[in-house]
Amino acid sequence: MTGAGTSTFWAEHLWTGVGDIRHGAVVEVVGDRIVSVVDDVAAPPTGSIELRGVTLPGLVNAHSHAFHRALRGRTQVGSGSFWTWRDVMYSVAGRLTPENYETLATAVFTEMVLAGVTTVGEFHYVHHTADGTPHDDPLAMSRALARAAATAGIRLTLLDTCYLVGGFAPASEPAAESDAEPADDPSAEPADDPSAEPVVDPSAEPVHVPLSPAQIRFGDGTVAAWAERATAVREALSGPTVVVGAAVHSVRAVPERDLATVAGWARGRDAPLHVHVSEQPAENADCARLLGSTPVALLRRHGVLDHRATAVHATHLTEDDVADLAAGDAWACFCVTTERDLADGVGPAGELVEAGVPLTVGSDSHAVIDLFEEARGIETGQRLVSNRRGWFGAARLMSAATVEGARSLGWDDAGLLEPGALADLVTVSLDSVRLADARRDSLLESIVFGATAADVSTVVVGGEIVVRDGVHARVASPGAALRSAIEAVLPPVDEPLSTLREDPSA
Amino acid sequence: MTGAGTSTFWAEHLWTGVGDIRHGAVVEVVGDRIVSVVDDVAAPPTGSIELRGVTLPGLVNAHSHAFHRALRGRTQVGSGSFWTWRDVMYSVAGRLTPENYETLATAVFTEMVLAGVTTVGEFHYVHHTADGTPHDDPLAMSRALARAAATAGIRLTLLDTCYLVGGFAPASEPAAESDAEPADDPSAEPADDPSAEPVVDPSAEPVHVPLSPAQIRFGDGTVAAWAERATAVREALSGPTVVVGAAVHSVRAVPERDLATVAGWARGRDAPLHVHVSEQPAENADCARLLGSTPVALLRRHGVLDHRATAVHATHLTEDDVADLAAGDAWACFCVTTERDLADGVGPAGELVEAGVPLTVGSDSHAVIDLFEEARGIETGQRLVSNRRGWFGAARLMSAATVEGARSLGWDDAGLLEPGALADLVTVSLDSVRLADARRDSLLESIVFGATAADVSTVVVGGEIVVRDGVHARVASPGAALRSAIEAVLPPVDEPLSTLREDPSA
Repeated sequence: MTGAGTSTFWAEHLWTGVGDIRHGAVVEVVGDRIVSVVDDVAAPPTGSIELRGVTLPGLVNAHSHAFHRALRGRTQVGSGSFWTWRDVMYSVAGRLTPENYETLATAVFTEMVLAGVTTVGEFHYVHHTADGTPHDDPLAMSRALARAAATAGIRLTLLDTCYLVGGFAPASEPAAESDAEPADDPSAEPADDPSAEPVVDPSAEPVHVPLSPAQIRFGDGTVAAWAERATAVREALSGPTVVVGAAVHSVRAVPERDLATVAGWARGRDAPLHVHVSEQPAENADCARLLGSTPVALLRRHGVLDHRATAVHATHLTEDDVADLAAGDAWACFCVTTERDLADGVGPAGELVEAGVPLTVGSDSHAVIDLFEEARGIETGQRLVSNRRGWFGAARLMSAATVEGARSLGWDDAGLLEPGALADLVTVSLDSVRLADARRDSLLESIVFGATAADVSTVVVGGEIVVRDGVHARVASPGAALRSAIEAVLPPVDEPLSTLREDPSA
Repeated sequence: MTGAGTSTFWAEHLWTGVGDIRHGAVVEVVGDRIVSVVDDVAAPPTGSIELRGVTLPGLVNAHSHAFHRALRGRTQVGSGSFWTWRDVMYSVAGRLTPENYETLATAVFTEMVLAGVTTVGEFHYVHHTADGTPHDDPLAMSRALARAAATAGIRLTLLDTCYLVGGFAPASEPAAESDAEPADDPSAEPADDPSAEPVVDPSAEPVHVPLSPAQIRFGDGTVAAWAERATAVREALSGPTVVVGAAVHSVRAVPERDLATVAGWARGRDAPLHVHVSEQPAENADCARLLGSTPVALLRRHGVLDHRATAVHATHLTEDDVADLAAGDAWACFCVTTERDLADGVGPAGELVEAGVPLTVGSDSHAVIDLFEEARGIETGQRLVSNRRGWFGAARLMSAATVEGARSLGWDDAGLLEPGALADLVTVSLDSVRLADARRDSLLESIVFGATAADVSTVVVGGEIVVRDGVHARVASPGAALRSAIEAVLPPVDEPLSTLREDPSA
């Protein structure tokens, strides 16, 4: 992705990330950067690489948990809640090794690149062995992800996640405020395995429960140990195609007293800092009960929300929460296909944007990987809950999936196709029945509201052609690679998923 | 579609529409019907047609307005409501002729077949010339649709739509119940051009306004004239691949006194009868104000709701409405990608199914054409508004897109792959990165929640292979066909859509 050569691309239609669509645009690339963009060139110059269709800045998937891809389809059997889904997810996490994780992440990142994604933010928390002890190489899992990204040809922001406790402590008088059976309240978190024997208790506060056996491999014990390991990861892996940032898993998983340390780590390095925020009502209810605050207010008080911060999901916010995110200059990352899948709800996209909080998008659990669906899903979600059309223009939705995502992941020189910027771009073919009727007066609208991942024809990362005519240049059989990688982290096919739910630490 | 020959298909995996997925299934077809299904045949018999992947009953698109396909992308420019969207739609309707409509519908039906649709319910109301007079052949528009379906290779239920008046009369004291500016209420219907000069007033009731100039071509003048024309259409076009049924456009467009006539026409012929119901809150509010009833209750009182009836959308229902639909043995057709696009809201799918109302799906305005997204969208919509997962199993969602749709369109012998049934089937490839990891324990879940229209590889209608390896057997360049067909019904590209909104009858 850092080729030293020179390439000339000719784009039939080009959206640089700002302004109107240009036509017949010649993009000159030297090494991994754009040196010039000239439009109104009617025919491709000799020796240029033709990009038929609409070329956009490379798509940015700002929130990914690569291994969740193994759950696609499988967690649709039977019913349940976010929390039962999480038990199945933990069972896959429990089977990961540096070796099978590299193979799996390579296949998942390859699927992303085929869908037009040139940069991914990997929210990474499977740090240690299944029993919680470090790998022989304590950075083994992070190195696996970096190698996977390099093989797949995708730019990586590794968000090294602090995950210290197992969740908020359950209320001492369950169901005291409701006549409903606990089992009837799908938003009630099942108290994070309170019956499980504590394995380690890094916190003296009664606010949280310790990590469960299924979670133990996510934790570093103390925030200082997290910071030490994250620093080592940053020093070892940062490079032309890798940024290392930080994440607070959530206010469920990091005690209040440790938030400022993670924030300080990121601020001191001007590194991106992401955090899951208010995805489910239960998090808000527990946070109010135990800490007398919303999650956003808690994060603000401890300096987590600044111009490098991203609140992931941001689904159940108060007006003050929205104002806090705006005052902090933070982003909000919407993951609408996951939020639909996990029954999270529709976040306040309109209020956030109006307050000045830019949006980004992520495929998160990879129920599907299609950033066009993520982008239009922001708009259609608002329409569903408001009875009004036209909240956001196509350009704003496309910016969420390109430049805003890039900036939120620490790539300040990506996301706009202009001289000096990284040469990351994606071409959407107009040949399919989905888009063949797109017209010059509404090309971007046709793409945002009608394109699918299957319409991506060419992907260029750092000047290198990674996908051409829908074929990955390096990975010969992406489907077969995914199949075998996922088989390696699943139980045998005749073992029902309900068994996993009964023993999430298996 | 009515080949007299014999074919043998071997399906790697087969869901017949009921029960578990079968493996290695041999489907024998004579003429247009299945004569036997035998499974556990390890290898394809000599001479058989191999169907690799998962074969399902052909998908059924129970609600389509073919010409709305011309709006895709274009109505995403700017903002607005359902009602401003409708103005743009009218401007396209105004340009239709029997010739350009046949070309357009052929291309749209071809897109559907490529997406795995073997039967479409076309809710057809553009009956006459733009000034409201009949074509020289009064059935010209219906014949255009039937020819288009034959060329595209799709089974057609033509729902001949009764459309007599221009909408509910506006309240005499506008905004009397609200301090809001009318323009701020996106659900407020702009009174269907009350300033437009009445062209015809078939009703003495003050409940409705006459057809506007943009609507005049939809109307037959009287319900008797509609019935006469619909009878002629049914006699002229019914055949092995065409069913002719009826539609009440809506309680906005058919006066109360005429509902029983349309219902009687359908009941006398045991023909399907579809009706747009409660898509927007404004319809309910106007119906309550002027007729003291919900739309569903009105339809029930006049005999519209029976075992041949489908309530299309059914978004804003009362508990009694749900009970009425169940008591009538009617279907509810959800069109979730359109309902997202048009800011309609999320209908009560859970309540309907629990009450015994089976669901069907439709791509309606064709914002996208992907029946997998329609099917999973029913489930994810419920998740978004309920905070709970697992409302419907994959089989029920797939039934909505297959057998329930077929029955609701009058094809009682389609939708299940069993001896005696019509040989309509679709094969979904498992080769793409979207589905390559699908496993035997959750194949149907993988498809319902992960497949897209682009994963359809083979489509068989009445025993004839219409699509093979994603290529339509008869239409050489479906994309180009769509492009030119849509260009023919749009204004020049430099004429902005806002102009159309100012003059919807242009």
